[in-house]
Amino acid sequence: MKPRVSLITLAVADLEAAVAFYRDGLGLETEGIVGKEFEHGAVAFFELQPGLGLALWAQEDLAHDAGLPVTPISSTAFCLAHNVMSREEVDAVLAQAEQAGGRIVKAADETFYGGYAGYFQDPDGHLWEVAWNPERLPE
Amino acid sequence: MKPRVSLITLAVADLEAAVAFYRDGLGLETEGIVGKEFEHGAVAFFELQPGLGLALWAQEDLAHDAGLPVTPISSTAFCLAHNVMSREEVDAVLAQAEQAGGRIVKAADETFYGGYAGYFQDPDGHLWEVAWNPERLPE
Repeated sequence: MKPRVSLITLAVADLEAAVAFYRDGLGLETEGIVGKEFEHGAVAFFELQPGLGLALWAQEDLAHDAGLPVTPISSTAFCLAHNVMSREEVDAVLAQAEQAGGRIVKAADETFYGGYAGYFQDPDGHLWEVAWNPERLPE
Repeated sequence: MKPRVSLITLAVADLEAAVAFYRDGLGLETEGIVGKEFEHGAVAFFELQPGLGLALWAQEDLAHDAGLPVTPISSTAFCLAHNVMSREEVDAVLAQAEQAGGRIVKAADETFYGGYAGYFQDPDGHLWEVAWNPERLPE
């Protein structure tokens, strides 16, 4: 298979609350919740970099679509890293996430690889790392 | 914050087995496990599209780094979608995933949005959707 991820879907307990966190709190643009006309189809999309989207979907709808049971979300199952250009930007994004209602799980600090990073959880417990990594600056 | 995900980290129980699945089974390129010289630092990176990487990291190491407990991975917490150009490619990628040791959780079928998609789980239970979506073809 080709090395490609087109869409990252995060399962959420409350779709409207999750949209509020990402749109109003973190400032990501979205058309809001679409697909309400389809059973289990209500979803919100956010465009990330070209070719990659972020979707918020009720966990029960994802579970229904995949034919899998709803089981508790683990905050250590995966992590989405948001890399930035400077240490100051790490601090600023973490402050924005906390202000938006996210939980800071690890304040920004020096990393073992020579960068500077911290972690926050979104309202559903999904884990984000905000990182300045001099070896992996955003384009 | 800017709309950007730089790295998707999947937490795994057995790093070598996970690398074998993604590298040997799915055919994604990697330099293999690096960072063994750092405590909790052993990781494997795969380059996806420009500006986006996939990392495999032992769940206990991610949990240690974030300061969070290891809790069971939910297969309905999130989903990574791999979009392809045709229905035939959906079938081919799902067959490859199954051959590699993944579990087909939903055979490819017509979707409510007019596409064609199926789901598989990797050996740790992480959920992937393989989709042909005429509204969202890969670039």
